[in-house]
Amino acid sequence: MPMPEYPTALGASTPDKITLLGQDLAEDVMGKVSFGELAFWLATQRRPTTGETRVFEAVLAALADHGFTPTAIVTRLTYLSAPDSVQGALAAGLLGGGSRFLGVTEDCGRFLHEVLRDRQLPLDVRMDGEGWDELALSVVRQEREAKRFIPGLGHHVHKDGDPRTPRLFEIAREEGHYGPHLSLFAAIGRVHPRVLGRTLPLNGAGVCGAALADLGLPMELLRGFALLARTAGLIGQLAEELRNPVANEIFLSVDLNNLSVPPEPYGGQHG
Amino acid sequence: MPMPEYPTALGASTPDKITLLGQDLAEDVMGKVSFGELAFWLATQRRPTTGETRVFEAVLAALADHGFTPTAIVTRLTYLSAPDSVQGALAAGLLGGGSRFLGVTEDCGRFLHEVLRDRQLPLDVRMDGEGWDELALSVVRQEREAKRFIPGLGHHVHKDGDPRTPRLFEIAREEGHYGPHLSLFAAIGRVHPRVLGRTLPLNGAGVCGAALADLGLPMELLRGFALLARTAGLIGQLAEELRNPVANEIFLSVDLNNLSVPPEPYGGQHG
Amino acid sequence: MPMPEYPTALGASTPDKITLLGQDLAEDVMGKVSFGELAFWLATQRRPTTGETRVFEAVLAALADHGFTPTAIVTRLTYLSAPDSVQGALAAGLLGGGSRFLGVTEDCGRFLHEVLRDRQLPLDVRMDGEGWDELALSVVRQEREAKRFIPGLGHHVHKDGDPRTPRLFEIAREEGHYGPHLSLFAAIGRVHPRVLGRTLPLNGAGVCGAALADLGLPMELLRGFALLARTAGLIGQLAEELRNPVANEIFLSVDLNNLSVPPEPYGGQHG
Amino acid sequence: MPMPEYPTALGASTPDKITLLGQDLAEDVMGKVSFGELAFWLATQRRPTTGETRVFEAVLAALADHGFTPTAIVTRLTYLSAPDSVQGALAAGLLGGGSRFLGVTEDCGRFLHEVLRDRQLPLDVRMDGEGWDELALSVVRQEREAKRFIPGLGHHVHKDGDPRTPRLFEIAREEGHYGPHLSLFAAIGRVHPRVLGRTLPLNGAGVCGAALADLGLPMELLRGFALLARTAGLIGQLAEELRNPVANEIFLSVDLNNLSVPPEPYGGQHG
Repeated sequence: MPMPEYPTALGASTPDKITLLGQDLAEDVMGKVSFGELAFWLATQRRPTTGETRVFEAVLAALADHGFTPTAIVTRLTYLSAPDSVQGALAAGLLGGGSRFLGVTEDCGRFLHEVLRDRQLPLDVRMDGEGWDELALSVVRQEREAKRFIPGLGHHVHKDGDPRTPRLFEIAREEGHYGPHLSLFAAIGRVHPRVLGRTLPLNGAGVCGAALADLGLPMELLRGFALLARTAGLIGQLAEELRNPVANEIFLSVDLNNLSVPPEPYGGQHG
Repeated sequence: MPMPEYPTALGASTPDKITLLGQDLAEDVMGKVSFGELAFWLATQRRPTTGETRVFEAVLAALADHGFTPTAIVTRLTYLSAPDSVQGALAAGLLGGGSRFLGVTEDCGRFLHEVLRDRQLPLDVRMDGEGWDELALSVVRQEREAKRFIPGLGHHVHKDGDPRTPRLFEIAREEGHYGPHLSLFAAIGRVHPRVLGRTLPLNGAGVCGAALADLGLPMELLRGFALLARTAGLIGQLAEELRNPVANEIFLSVDLNNLSVPPEPYGGQHG
Repeated sequence: MPMPEYPTALGASTPDKITLLGQDLAEDVMGKVSFGELAFWLATQRRPTTGETRVFEAVLAALADHGFTPTAIVTRLTYLSAPDSVQGALAAGLLGGGSRFLGVTEDCGRFLHEVLRDRQLPLDVRMDGEGWDELALSVVRQEREAKRFIPGLGHHVHKDGDPRTPRLFEIAREEGHYGPHLSLFAAIGRVHPRVLGRTLPLNGAGVCGAALADLGLPMELLRGFALLARTAGLIGQLAEELRNPVANEIFLSVDLNNLSVPPEPYGGQHG
Repeated sequence: MPMPEYPTALGASTPDKITLLGQDLAEDVMGKVSFGELAFWLATQRRPTTGETRVFEAVLAALADHGFTPTAIVTRLTYLSAPDSVQGALAAGLLGGGSRFLGVTEDCGRFLHEVLRDRQLPLDVRMDGEGWDELALSVVRQEREAKRFIPGLGHHVHKDGDPRTPRLFEIAREEGHYGPHLSLFAAIGRVHPRVLGRTLPLNGAGVCGAALADLGLPMELLRGFALLARTAGLIGQLAEELRNPVANEIFLSVDLNNLSVPPEPYGGQHG
């Protein structure tokens, strides 16, 4: 077996030069490219426009931190237990970024993407509101018949509207990136009461997925961007924990309230 | 035991409003605060100036990706093995961000910080070059006598100079954030040949630690910022892996070249 | 909100006593319960019989280590990069235990379980070989029509038979735990050539899933037992890495063979 | 660069055979080697005796689960948040196995090991109780003078004695593995009141480290064995969570009791 070669357009270095994405890292990236811009560039291997960057960073801001979520609690407890490993505390928190809490962003983006793909609508489709409403109506009906929830529709706290949603629509419109995913999502927000018989809010994490999809980012990594945003949030959680620790109190509030119960055998003759 | 309360200045929400760091998330953060700025703000609970943000983002750019590092290989292999879990692939990569590869940033920042603290030098100390050289000389001598390496001095590839180092000095100077940590680090770079008898480059990951320390960021989290930068890099690695996969070839290059050897008993009668 | 209580039958302690699963840990568990037995007991809250333990431990042995798998390489590389954190190296390796490499065990167990449930066959069903063959034939036909693969059928290396498979059948039979999942899996092995037109081996990781299901272990955790087995294997990998390190060579074999290529823009105008 | 080879004595396979540690996996390991025995064998590449296995498994039992520790809470919360990834929930829990909670085992084993090494005492040294007391006395005095705590001395719950400690001494003695580490630890337990002026219990996690060291296991991996034990415990936690979930209640007990406070700026002009 001959030695394989591993192609990459990301980081590379020679004794006197470091390149990243074909750029001179020191001269052309450091001091010239913002972090949000760079994250977009790394994921797509193309430099985003100012407008794309603004929408992208608005999404990251929307997803960075939501207070004492399971991910935040997990990062604080892991740091309490293993303060020697900041990487472990951050990694543990990110591992909660799965289907249930951070998943809405990915699920919503993918769902809209698949609708558009199945209808063979191009990514630069332009329709008037009525066109979108019609499409949305058929989608909501179809999902209702299949007894499936529409990802991104509904929110357990912001029952009358998630404040992030209209704001992200607005920013995307200002920057000319209000594309078919956001259009369809907005239309779903308008028409679903006609089918479901009640009005649900458009979830802010869901609209983020729609916006990322309109930016042309890879579907497989929508969850990844939510995790990038959350990494910044978890560092904030650790910084606060360092100064105003609560993890030990959380731990004790569980441990001291444990209730010892007899085992409940499972399976076998008992199953 | 009464129910404890858990104070936080980070995310909070009511049915119709979401706040983050005391700001209205939708109105005052989304579309107005860049991601690098927000990450700084989350970690310090204060909004950075434009200059602070530029230095901070230059550091993040310097640390985001270095090609096929262990962290990048780990993320790609984990995705190969468990493509259902993007969070797992990113977390696995971050777990390599420990003492050896990402540690230089933290170690260097801390080292300089401790020197300044032991000498009781204030964070806004102003000295001329000679003053710094004198301090640096005593530090290099002291470490040499103790047979300790100075963190951030030396680089296994960039033997004649890491291109990130002069660039970060420059950016920090332009923005007025060339403080005592960077000053001392630069002085170490000037004087160490007199003590060690040979000239070593100032490591780019090390100078990042000095710059973060001059920005007043918490010492305990310097590694955290390197991990934030790396998260963006690892998403880039995954995006590339999705389109031009190499992980399976890496796996096979190891597995197919395994050499079965007899066990070497350890410990016990054999130890 | 009143303080909640958290019931558990697992570990509990008072100043002078520690209990686990309702047992006195020091007196009744330590020195009396083997580790495999304890792991089974913890998962089911009932003490397994000697026969159940033997089948269970045979499964763990079958899954503990397969040489230079992605999980093993990941653990070694992470330890190279962050030797300060053994927990990080093990956790990183386990994160590769997802759908593709360790998933067969879970997928196969679940698949068989669902077939039995859909046919409303009780867990102690007793049929002769012909009865199983008939059921297996209908299952293989159904999956073929749906163009789905049967989990656990086929192996990329052991094309003429995985040596673990007949051995696990044998052990289960010896211990009286050759139940409906193993029976159905064996029958699939016998009849599939009639439908598919070629003979595939029954995968050893798949038969492990069938055996765990016959032991009445929870379907949601079949992957968990594979991970427990793998934890022991990864400790073995680390122990070997400490004495005969290869991780740095693996890293260099990739890094030194990187091929710098121009970026391939994705999405946007380019997508 | 020629293709490197990667030697290993662990898993290897050919189309018709799988070996592990030089054994035929199917014929010689499955059904014949218990899981605790195998874990020991993997770590040392030698098959343990019955006595070694019994001591080793007693240690694993002692460390498997302690109820609602941070690691257990973290695993449950991560599963709540990302139920699609059992591997993520287990990995997150293990990441809490660091210096503070699981560290005692490693720290105690290492501490005793270093004392013996510095005194150049062979691993099969035989001394009477007085000899050990004398050594222990000098060690306790030395640590006291250096204002260092002795790892494994003291316990925050079991103030009058950890029930695991005498039991593990007993098991080790029964099996002839009461070696110098346990002897020294026991002597520290006897003599420290003379130096410290008060009686502290010998911690059960600490005595586990001493016992593992007497078994000749590698110092670098003592924490690894604690993590192996904990993996079984965390699977138990997940199994219980599946049937009697508490994670959502834990999450809400924190989230609903959050107290929004104003930011406290850190660093910069404010630092």
